[in-house]
Amino acid sequence: MSIQTSPPAERPIASAVRVEDKPALSTSRPRSLLRNLVGVAARPGVLSFGGGLPASELLPTEEYGRALVAALQDPTSLQYRPPYEPLIEHIVQIMKRRGVDCSADQVLVTSGAQQGIQILAELLLRTGGSVLLEETTYTGIGCAIAPFAPRIHTVPSSIATGLDPNDVESRLASGLEPSFLYLVPDSANPSGTTLSSERRQALAGLARQRRLPILEDDPYGFLTYDGEPLAPIKSYEDDWVFYLGSFSKVISPALRLGWMVVSPETRAQAEIVKDALDLESSALTQRAVARYLDDNDLFERIERLNQTYRRRRDAMLEALDRHFPPEAQWSKPRGGFFVWVELPPGTDTRKLLDRAVSEESLAFVPGQAFAVGASQADNCLRLSFSATSCEQIADGIQRLASLL
Amino acid sequence: MSIQTSPPAERPIASAVRVEDKPALSTSRPRSLLRNLVGVAARPGVLSFGGGLPASELLPTEEYGRALVAALQDPTSLQYRPPYEPLIEHIVQIMKRRGVDCSADQVLVTSGAQQGIQILAELLLRTGGSVLLEETTYTGIGCAIAPFAPRIHTVPSSIATGLDPNDVESRLASGLEPSFLYLVPDSANPSGTTLSSERRQALAGLARQRRLPILEDDPYGFLTYDGEPLAPIKSYEDDWVFYLGSFSKVISPALRLGWMVVSPETRAQAEIVKDALDLESSALTQRAVARYLDDNDLFERIERLNQTYRRRRDAMLEALDRHFPPEAQWSKPRGGFFVWVELPPGTDTRKLLDRAVSEESLAFVPGQAFAVGASQADNCLRLSFSATSCEQIADGIQRLASLL
Repeated sequence: MSIQTSPPAERPIASAVRVEDKPALSTSRPRSLLRNLVGVAARPGVLSFGGGLPASELLPTEEYGRALVAALQDPTSLQYRPPYEPLIEHIVQIMKRRGVDCSADQVLVTSGAQQGIQILAELLLRTGGSVLLEETTYTGIGCAIAPFAPRIHTVPSSIATGLDPNDVESRLASGLEPSFLYLVPDSANPSGTTLSSERRQALAGLARQRRLPILEDDPYGFLTYDGEPLAPIKSYEDDWVFYLGSFSKVISPALRLGWMVVSPETRAQAEIVKDALDLESSALTQRAVARYLDDNDLFERIERLNQTYRRRRDAMLEALDRHFPPEAQWSKPRGGFFVWVELPPGTDTRKLLDRAVSEESLAFVPGQAFAVGASQADNCLRLSFSATSCEQIADGIQRLASLL
Repeated sequence: MSIQTSPPAERPIASAVRVEDKPALSTSRPRSLLRNLVGVAARPGVLSFGGGLPASELLPTEEYGRALVAALQDPTSLQYRPPYEPLIEHIVQIMKRRGVDCSADQVLVTSGAQQGIQILAELLLRTGGSVLLEETTYTGIGCAIAPFAPRIHTVPSSIATGLDPNDVESRLASGLEPSFLYLVPDSANPSGTTLSSERRQALAGLARQRRLPILEDDPYGFLTYDGEPLAPIKSYEDDWVFYLGSFSKVISPALRLGWMVVSPETRAQAEIVKDALDLESSALTQRAVARYLDDNDLFERIERLNQTYRRRRDAMLEALDRHFPPEAQWSKPRGGFFVWVELPPGTDTRKLLDRAVSEESLAFVPGQAFAVGASQADNCLRLSFSATSCEQIADGIQRLASLL
């Protein structure tokens, strides 16, 4: 991710408009390399370990279709409507299962978690403020904060244990006052790493003592394949942790529904921003998802998902063990969709991707896509195991290894 | 609309976070008075002329339900997907019927036209730049531009003829260099006024000659009840006019689908911003709307809508003629959802609303909600005729008049 770190007000817009024959527009937001890859991966015949996609064959087309038809019995499902309270009640119950007690007035339904990131970035960050990120992180945070021209500070993150709260503490002790720390504590994108309960508690303590807002992005928490999910940082610290949830990975990305759990005061501010961004999230989708949750056991579904994804993760780790060179290292994800691989320094995974696509019709995401600021991840790659069969994984990893 | 005109960087965020026990967040975006009214209007027994809602009984629940079920035959409708090209082709054809020739690479599907407004505001406006608006205008533009702390300049708008291009020209001649002019040329929200073809052409000429970007927001163009819709400004000037369309009023607001027609270069920039705002609009909804448009004649539907809305508009104008005092004035909309009423100076329509709700269980929107900057519309109100029957309109307007 090439997060822009240039100073604000350098956008060549209004003045340029005056001297050109056509309007000259530009955005300081980075183009997401990930989104470009969707095109590559969609080419016929390409086996993709690239996208962070749920398994298409496990998407609940029949059950959700029935929920939609039921919701359409009420014609005002197709109308402008206020947020749908029964859906919010479902989210409160889902959060309870996630280990977070919250009330309905703490929940704002968003158009995917990405919208929640954008809203909270706007609320927390002023132009030229500072943001603390892991050296490799989810690309969507960089796209969301870029218009605020933030100063980006990073903390290292190990593929075994993730971010070290001591590193955060020393950054704060040295005078850094970030507007927030953003992280994905469970089976992170891209690293696949899960933060221990001890580290979560330490971060929660830092958040309170050092008045450090934390954006806790949790798309994968329920998708935990070894033992129970760990309680989110939010469960240890309510005031300073801004929690983001999503239906995209546990039901379907095409719902475009996520949520945030924040204080009622923050929720009221966030609702004003959401109003400006897209007025509201679909009344029909909100009703259909609530109906789906009435009629289906989400946690039974998650257990089925986890069985499939566990097998695929195991197949990928086994194939890496078998075929990848001993000097390569990779994460051992407890859940989620991703394995992060570190190849020997000097390897250029962008060149490797070119060869993988042209010679083996294989795709993955080069580490550079997730590198923040001055960080380098040129020798790294992200492999997704969620949307390919165990056989494809075994075959594809072997073929990828043949290029190394 | 209380558009913020304070200078930038006055948001009490990051520094306040350091001294409070809880995070102190705020947004410069105004709370939409309109959205609050949705709550009032939804109270049982309240007859609302407030919201800009399509008629619920005309929403295509059965047809759209069939389209959804058909789209769900492909499970990847529930997946992350790139923009759906058959939907874009439908939009190109719809624009052709609207009088605008455009190509697929000029069309970006957005999560409602509001998202299109937000994206274009970000692309066109730099912090502290200027924006030119009518003295009363759609509240969503104020919400979208507020974070850029723009200097707001206004031009008058008559309820008979709308904005006068000569007024725009004299503002430009006096040295104003707005980042854009925003307007709704057809059956405007809130005024109900339609700009003549001559004035559209004059604005198109100004846009080109004076390098004035125009945001042309067109939710109501097809909902024209007297004669044919007038061609949009976009049809006279391609480079400098940024067109925004929406399915909300002609199919359903719960689709949350709109579009923009811009240059391919602008579309590429807009796509980057959209990516940051919500990743993508629902793959399922895009496929279902395309299927709906395959299987149903949108323009037959629009003709049916127009028959109903025409009767309701006529009922409202007739009731106003019959019951409202002779010193009141109101617009005679060619289409859309709204009649704008100017009561004698000194009338306070916010107080009138309090009495209307408490004494007559009636709701409307006070003019102040739409007033820009220093403008006053305290003696004005917006009446919507779209979502109430002719009988309710006749009865409600008589009762409202009894309070004057």
